[in-house]
Amino acid sequence: MRLFLILILSYPIMALSQVNKDSVMIKRLSDEIMTNGKAYDLLRELTKNIGGRLAGSPEQHNAAIWGKVNMEAFHPDKVFFQPCKTPNWKRGGKDYAAIVGIDGKVMNKKLAVMALGNSFSSKGLVEADVMVVADFDELEKRKNEVKGKIVYYHSILDPNMIETGRAYENAYSYRSDGPSRAAKYGAVAVMIHSLSTAPDNEPQTGVMEYNDSFPKIPAIALGPMDAKALYAQARTSTIRVQMETFGFFLPDADENNVVAELKGSEFPNEVITIGGHLDSWDVNEGAHDDGTGVVHTMEVLRAFKALNYHPKRTIRFVLFANEENGGRGGLKYAELAKSNNEKHILALESDDGGFTPRAIGIGCSATQLKRFQNWNPLLKRYGTEVIAGGGGADLEPLGLNDKKTILTSLLVDGQRYFDLHHAVTDVFENVNKRELHLGAVNIAAFIYLVDQYGVGN
Amino acid sequence: MRLFLILILSYPIMALSQVNKDSVMIKRLSDEIMTNGKAYDLLRELTKNIGGRLAGSPEQHNAAIWGKVNMEAFHPDKVFFQPCKTPNWKRGGKDYAAIVGIDGKVMNKKLAVMALGNSFSSKGLVEADVMVVADFDELEKRKNEVKGKIVYYHSILDPNMIETGRAYENAYSYRSDGPSRAAKYGAVAVMIHSLSTAPDNEPQTGVMEYNDSFPKIPAIALGPMDAKALYAQARTSTIRVQMETFGFFLPDADENNVVAELKGSEFPNEVITIGGHLDSWDVNEGAHDDGTGVVHTMEVLRAFKALNYHPKRTIRFVLFANEENGGRGGLKYAELAKSNNEKHILALESDDGGFTPRAIGIGCSATQLKRFQNWNPLLKRYGTEVIAGGGGADLEPLGLNDKKTILTSLLVDGQRYFDLHHAVTDVFENVNKRELHLGAVNIAAFIYLVDQYGVGN
Repeated sequence: MRLFLILILSYPIMALSQVNKDSVMIKRLSDEIMTNGKAYDLLRELTKNIGGRLAGSPEQHNAAIWGKVNMEAFHPDKVFFQPCKTPNWKRGGKDYAAIVGIDGKVMNKKLAVMALGNSFSSKGLVEADVMVVADFDELEKRKNEVKGKIVYYHSILDPNMIETGRAYENAYSYRSDGPSRAAKYGAVAVMIHSLSTAPDNEPQTGVMEYNDSFPKIPAIALGPMDAKALYAQARTSTIRVQMETFGFFLPDADENNVVAELKGSEFPNEVITIGGHLDSWDVNEGAHDDGTGVVHTMEVLRAFKALNYHPKRTIRFVLFANEENGGRGGLKYAELAKSNNEKHILALESDDGGFTPRAIGIGCSATQLKRFQNWNPLLKRYGTEVIAGGGGADLEPLGLNDKKTILTSLLVDGQRYFDLHHAVTDVFENVNKRELHLGAVNIAAFIYLVDQYGVGN
Repeated sequence: MRLFLILILSYPIMALSQVNKDSVMIKRLSDEIMTNGKAYDLLRELTKNIGGRLAGSPEQHNAAIWGKVNMEAFHPDKVFFQPCKTPNWKRGGKDYAAIVGIDGKVMNKKLAVMALGNSFSSKGLVEADVMVVADFDELEKRKNEVKGKIVYYHSILDPNMIETGRAYENAYSYRSDGPSRAAKYGAVAVMIHSLSTAPDNEPQTGVMEYNDSFPKIPAIALGPMDAKALYAQARTSTIRVQMETFGFFLPDADENNVVAELKGSEFPNEVITIGGHLDSWDVNEGAHDDGTGVVHTMEVLRAFKALNYHPKRTIRFVLFANEENGGRGGLKYAELAKSNNEKHILALESDDGGFTPRAIGIGCSATQLKRFQNWNPLLKRYGTEVIAGGGGADLEPLGLNDKKTILTSLLVDGQRYFDLHHAVTDVFENVNKRELHLGAVNIAAFIYLVDQYGVGN
């Protein structure tokens, strides 16, 4: 009797028969994915047979074809490409840096480094004394000392922040803006502490954006151990560093978003989107970033078809062409949605890695959020609940179209993500099958509920 | 104003000033552990310098000395050994099994195997046809076919259970009781599907208990891939298997629980225990099982001392000598607690692996649980909340002393644990530093609150 009361209280807007029907359907989706799921095998193919997929690379191009062929094999109503121009940055060579002098004494200690994405060639060796700063405040205070120096930012992720994503956001601008902010005062190159939480020495690349007003100086990330040692040493000694980078751009490449579609039976004009991005950086297999989002997307399609589920609304499964260094995939998707007058009611991205799912983050009004949270009892047994927040880089342009699309994301356990994010260690072996498949379960459950009940007004 | 109301509602039994004090202290503990924590480095020593620690092995003996020396370095009020006899099982050799015939046709396919813990030598090669059964029900139905056979149990963990611990419990009796239940009907040996969730072929050992009424036949676990292939094939063909095991017992060994103590300033006679177990199986480094529980325990002591925290109650930090194959460490601890007339108000074990913490499981009355749950707002920001359930194998004897000790445990994300539990893959490299340290944060926070406010009546 008590259980009965709790059920009624938990589902103020649904009849009990609906709750039971939904609970059964979600359990069927879960069992299908946990027992027969193909996400892990698909990820092995994407990471091991194809590999790293920087926009403009042959691998990225092949990954789109692979995605199309594999989604066609699940027999959705249609699968199509959305052609899309992407940036075409090349690393160009083996990034190099070494400490060559300490207080005037010659030495040679090679550093673990990786050029930042979109950074330019140093055009030969750059050699200069290092100026280390804790943050932008220190840079501004000491701007008169910058000229001719290699500036190092101690951009560590705050270990005391339990949510690693917040720590990453706080340090992000050192990678994205640090080079130009130092170039403004005459720096000849920039080094940063990799935006890493790992207790190792693997450098991490990631997107950097030059400000066209200043010289485009070479920029690299140091491995965490080398970075901490350099920072400590340079506070008491004059450190001289040599570095060389090789980055350049080719003309924009022709890539493709891959879109599979299940046509809605009752409200075909209401579109729900699930997606992840196909591209990755060049230095790893792009397993957690964002191979897992790609195979989550494909697995939800597979599971819906395996259970012969016919959605009420139109569901799109989108593998975005380019997120890492340009976000062109999401821009193209939003542009076409607008020009085709499509009504997008909700979109979900999986781009936080294939770790144990913890929540569905939703960006919407408090009233709408409360309505979504009525579904929590159905989701909690699989590990998630609806909370505020959400969206994803590939979805933001869609959200700006008419500001009516609700943007959501799969939120996962974030403790390991920034250990391997944009590092050589983001490989298939560091993805756990059960964690990955459980993510697909929760996306499938949530999207099923959105399809059944819509998003309200 | 609204926040103020929520705070009052959340802490019905505490004044606001207390809440603030507790919140500040817990944040200090968290920062100390996340920034200066030594758990990860201690675990590296325990797993890499010492290694696997089966009770009775030199490694287990050395681990106790290592634990004592390292806890003494944190300067608690005292550190002492509790001498304790433990079983002394030896694997004795390289376990072996192979398929040597299919439907009468000779072949040789080696299988990935590991003898179950406490199992005996086969005294040479055993060769027989395999009888595969799905479960005990099938064994009982077909008991007349068992004589002279090698019985294989298809003891998979149900992939559809989201909580892997429950799936493990459901399959547990095949490993613990399967050999004797088959020996009862004349089986010459037993094989099981390893109690594994991993998408690999690593066999997993673990404790088995012979029933003295029946012959003590050799018993092995198969790697998951070999097991599934054998099960499928044996349903349609006659499979002949050869196997050899070498297990034996030496006389009980002299081992030690290691106990560090902080004396309480207000209620020194009320004892709170935190613990993990030093011993492991012989085939791996015992990293998650239970090196992480050991270093959680040591780290909480270190953090309390680093912050110069003087507890009101007496806190014991216990590294139990023997859990895996005998539970003698917990028995000794409980025996001494009883003979010394100690009043143990609460004990917490960390023995589910060093994964992201999710909850503090508490075994107590509903009224007491509700009281503990008032602390949830303080714990949730670090990832846990108080829920029903809890305890641990090392604590159960203590719980039986006067049935007044509240048994609790750190509950963690369980998706990866049974991939590596009792397999060669339970090594340091598969422990994540942030996940590990966050476990210590939550134990420290909870134990701090228990120390401050006791456990009620």
